Amino acid sequence: MGKALDYQQILDQLYNEIAVLDDPGELASYIPELSKVSTDKFGVSLISLNGEIYGAGDYQERFSIQSISKLYSLSLAYNICGEDLWSRVDVEPSGTSFNSLLQLEAENGIPRNPFLNSGALVICDVLLSKLDNPKQEMLDLLNQGVGSSDITFDTAVANSEKSVGWRNIALCNYIKSYGNIDNHPDDVLDLYFHLCAISMSCRELAQASLYLANNGIIPETQQRVNTISQTKRLNAIMQTCGFYDESGEFSFRVGLPGKSGVGGGIIAVFPTQYAIAVWSPRLNEKGNSFKGMNLLEQLTTITEASIF
Amino acid sequence: MGKALDYQQILDQLYNEIAVLDDPGELASYIPELSKVSTDKFGVSLISLNGEIYGAGDYQERFSIQSISKLYSLSLAYNICGEDLWSRVDVEPSGTSFNSLLQLEAENGIPRNPFLNSGALVICDVLLSKLDNPKQEMLDLLNQGVGSSDITFDTAVANSEKSVGWRNIALCNYIKSYGNIDNHPDDVLDLYFHLCAISMSCRELAQASLYLANNGIIPETQQRVNTISQTKRLNAIMQTCGFYDESGEFSFRVGLPGKSGVGGGIIAVFPTQYAIAVWSPRLNEKGNSFKGMNLLEQLTTITEASIF
Amino acid sequence: MGKALDYQQILDQLYNEIAVLDDPGELASYIPELSKVSTDKFGVSLISLNGEIYGAGDYQERFSIQSISKLYSLSLAYNICGEDLWSRVDVEPSGTSFNSLLQLEAENGIPRNPFLNSGALVICDVLLSKLDNPKQEMLDLLNQGVGSSDITFDTAVANSEKSVGWRNIALCNYIKSYGNIDNHPDDVLDLYFHLCAISMSCRELAQASLYLANNGIIPETQQRVNTISQTKRLNAIMQTCGFYDESGEFSFRVGLPGKSGVGGGIIAVFPTQYAIAVWSPRLNEKGNSFKGMNLLEQLTTITEASIF
Amino acid sequence: MGKALDYQQILDQLYNEIAVLDDPGELASYIPELSKVSTDKFGVSLISLNGEIYGAGDYQERFSIQSISKLYSLSLAYNICGEDLWSRVDVEPSGTSFNSLLQLEAENGIPRNPFLNSGALVICDVLLSKLDNPKQEMLDLLNQGVGSSDITFDTAVANSEKSVGWRNIALCNYIKSYGNIDNHPDDVLDLYFHLCAISMSCRELAQASLYLANNGIIPETQQRVNTISQTKRLNAIMQTCGFYDESGEFSFRVGLPGKSGVGGGIIAVFPTQYAIAVWSPRLNEKGNSFKGMNLLEQLTTITEASIF
Repeated sequence: MGKALDYQQILDQLYNEIAVLDDPGELASYIPELSKVSTDKFGVSLISLNGEIYGAGDYQERFSIQSISKLYSLSLAYNICGEDLWSRVDVEPSGTSFNSLLQLEAENGIPRNPFLNSGALVICDVLLSKLDNPKQEMLDLLNQGVGSSDITFDTAVANSEKSVGWRNIALCNYIKSYGNIDNHPDDVLDLYFHLCAISMSCRELAQASLYLANNGIIPETQQRVNTISQTKRLNAIMQTCGFYDESGEFSFRVGLPGKSGVGGGIIAVFPTQYAIAVWSPRLNEKGNSFKGMNLLEQLTTITEASIF
Repeated sequence: MGKALDYQQILDQLYNEIAVLDDPGELASYIPELSKVSTDKFGVSLISLNGEIYGAGDYQERFSIQSISKLYSLSLAYNICGEDLWSRVDVEPSGTSFNSLLQLEAENGIPRNPFLNSGALVICDVLLSKLDNPKQEMLDLLNQGVGSSDITFDTAVANSEKSVGWRNIALCNYIKSYGNIDNHPDDVLDLYFHLCAISMSCRELAQASLYLANNGIIPETQQRVNTISQTKRLNAIMQTCGFYDESGEFSFRVGLPGKSGVGGGIIAVFPTQYAIAVWSPRLNEKGNSFKGMNLLEQLTTITEASIF
Repeated sequence: MGKALDYQQILDQLYNEIAVLDDPGELASYIPELSKVSTDKFGVSLISLNGEIYGAGDYQERFSIQSISKLYSLSLAYNICGEDLWSRVDVEPSGTSFNSLLQLEAENGIPRNPFLNSGALVICDVLLSKLDNPKQEMLDLLNQGVGSSDITFDTAVANSEKSVGWRNIALCNYIKSYGNIDNHPDDVLDLYFHLCAISMSCRELAQASLYLANNGIIPETQQRVNTISQTKRLNAIMQTCGFYDESGEFSFRVGLPGKSGVGGGIIAVFPTQYAIAVWSPRLNEKGNSFKGMNLLEQLTTITEASIF
Repeated sequence: MGKALDYQQILDQLYNEIAVLDDPGELASYIPELSKVSTDKFGVSLISLNGEIYGAGDYQERFSIQSISKLYSLSLAYNICGEDLWSRVDVEPSGTSFNSLLQLEAENGIPRNPFLNSGALVICDVLLSKLDNPKQEMLDLLNQGVGSSDITFDTAVANSEKSVGWRNIALCNYIKSYGNIDNHPDDVLDLYFHLCAISMSCRELAQASLYLANNGIIPETQQRVNTISQTKRLNAIMQTCGFYDESGEFSFRVGLPGKSGVGGGIIAVFPTQYAIAVWSPRLNEKGNSFKGMNLLEQLTTITEASIF
């Protein structure tokens, strides 16, 4: 299944076709620091389970992974808490946009899923309660996955988000009002803004995500991040909730579990096969990378390979 | 993957364990005719792509497939309309219960997905506009899949639903008020109530669903029901939307595309491997079969095989 | 208070000023028969408790009173049921538009107030259960108030509404699904569409509403329609709920209890003083008569007299 | 109208009857400092426009006026901004509870009315922008109305609210995210928590509110707080929005413009006649004083006098 495919050729072809497309998307403008990124950046990297690395365009350039970090913080919290985690956050798609407060009100402060901002804030609260140094442990997880040591936070981006992060401050205090945040909102938000401000390249993202295609084990180090069952469930949550209120559309068009970020990055995973990361900062109206979505859809269409 | 598994032994074991469980679920009571079913019915049938048939319990007894029929009517409409179909109905999980009107109001009469009652009513409207005899064509599709000729409607159930179907009458007229129903609501509702009232056994359901695990082709007759791409997309919609506001939970726990019905049946599909149907009429609070969900979760846990 | 005012002069002045205003409003287009009305119709009639009749413009011409009839059907039902009525419908402003289904879902089929379409349908259901001939009794109430015998239904309008009344059919069946409609929805809707299709002039409307300014007693016949307490409460409901989601605005700008109809009519009541009716078919975006709102606001501003 | 009534006798009678009622209400428990109040406190004071002061029970004892302060801050802001104020906040009843975020999301950060917490936060923001010392000016307004100099903030209550005010912090930051708060949320919240923590007695509240029954002029000092038109409109907003999602019920049962606070106080105004304040700390399920609502309903029933 897909093994004989020449992924490098496919990536090159798709990159060339899509790079020149008229892109109707717009840069995320609400975070001042993010709006400085060059809008024509475009890169993609696919890494197979047997270690082959493919890439095209700006796939070695780091960018702000933003909400993609919600995937790794969830991995960490799930590993620590096991199934107890789900008393704090649900696993249902929300059907609403990423920073909505609507459902929180109807559901007493239990976020619909850990990939909404609300859910990720609860995950940050869990990490703060369970770990001595959650920031460092997150960086360690990513650096181990990549085999590097210099993946870190872009403090300018973290501060930029904090300076305009009224909606997230509102969300965190709102959940606190329902008793589903244990730590002080300021501390939770500080961790949240830092995790969003991690910088990685497409190649690094794909590499750091390979454990999700490999039953929870980092291929290179053979370190286990999550159990088999946890890993399948993480992929399932990505499948149903990874793209806010475009999750159904992504599942429909691409057919792989994935997670997007407002910096224009998307990570997708083909269990037993590969992880792939794309980056292009212009976002469609749902907040997902226009070119990134496009490339992934065409990739699974051409290869006729998806989880379905 | 999974080929060497002794499915008959696994089904027997799970059937025996789960049959004796204390079942907190309740029979669907709002359709008078359905409430006559014996509550301890329990059956399961798994049919592999190479034609092996496994079964346990009441797997040869017919029951009212109810909303599982929404899967086949969607297949038919998708085959007829292609991608044009999606201007009438979206593919996003709703995050709400099966007969909610909330999102219709916010989204101008375009149902969130074709597995909600609202979406299935639009699909019925499409079939009425496109086919001379949609009732017969639906029965033909199912009889061909099963290699039988006597799958048909339970008229008593159809009439029973019609006599108390105020909510569905409301839904259909509501969508009509937004212009997204072309035919007269009475005709759309007649087709809808009939499709819900089809009677099939677990064995028949599994058999009739095999094309979804086989890239759109009925294995026995080699008849194509949907294109490869359509089939993957149907599975994707099942994955994200097949269980109303428990879709995330099913995806999380079972990890297979599936569709449930209020009669207590569930169909699930493992692409390239098998189709499986379970039946037990007692429903959990989300309206899905308690024992059926349980059996499917344990099956994919034991076999460590799911699409993720 | 206001007694020495020359109402005829004030009405003439306001009529002349407002008649020539550029009217941004639009005719209600969703009921075919209503869209035939000449858009420049404009009339006003004020009748004081001591029987003086003032009028300007087309105040003697009949038009479709539409939702203003909800006021009289409520009076009738309140008179029959007393405070028991409020177990079927609440008295809270809805904060939503007139035909919304949102709150019904959250509140189990109990309409927010009797001036929403949903609430008026429940009132029609009550009248059907309690009266032998509710249509005739409604006409009797109005004819008695006016001292006439020929106020009746415009059957063409009633049929026109029925032919496109999908939203109201949806509402009625939806409430039925919650058990808050006792009769068959078809019968309830027939009464509802007829009551909306009553034709009256501004003069007749003002006259028929005088009992609301007179502690529940029709001045001319001394017939009691409602008790003192009921009358005060009817006025209170008009004050908070009479203009859908523009009720606060009307209360704020005009300061009188009132009720509007989609035919462009508005009735308002100044307890102990007068009743006033205006008619101009062009509606603002909230569905209330643009010129009518304008005239009433200026009237209470000039006279410096409102209930506040 | 009502002039010949012996208000003292009526208040005594109602006080005696209601004081001994079994009170199903509960103390507001979410603000620690408020939960220290003795639950059997009960007082009422009515002051007529001609200066007669009536009272019964604990009507001279100060308590935390809480949301009643929203009435006076609105008066002040309306006086300063005139009709421009309404671009920042609407005048529609919300149909939801006092601290709901639902409608803010649908309506882009424009609160439904100035008596919701959200609306009062916007009013605080206006006062901060327009006044050098808004805290002092608020106290001045109240002290002038009462003819005293020692009405002030209960700092323990203000701090207590701040320490648990997650929901209000959320609201303020949420509105800020829509651009409808100009100052820093911390400053707005500080003013908000202080205004809620003003301590006054029933007698003082009635006295301080007399200008609302007197066309905007403080009777004793003849100082104008609001224009005639503004005063009528303030009363209208109280009528439709003063009791959160029980506003319709209060209007229906009591028939006077009023405003309640979570400390158990209620102020009501009968234009041209009197102002009345009641206090009893146990709240019904909608957050309004159980005994206070009861007394006011019986008062207007016995006197057969309300604005309707």
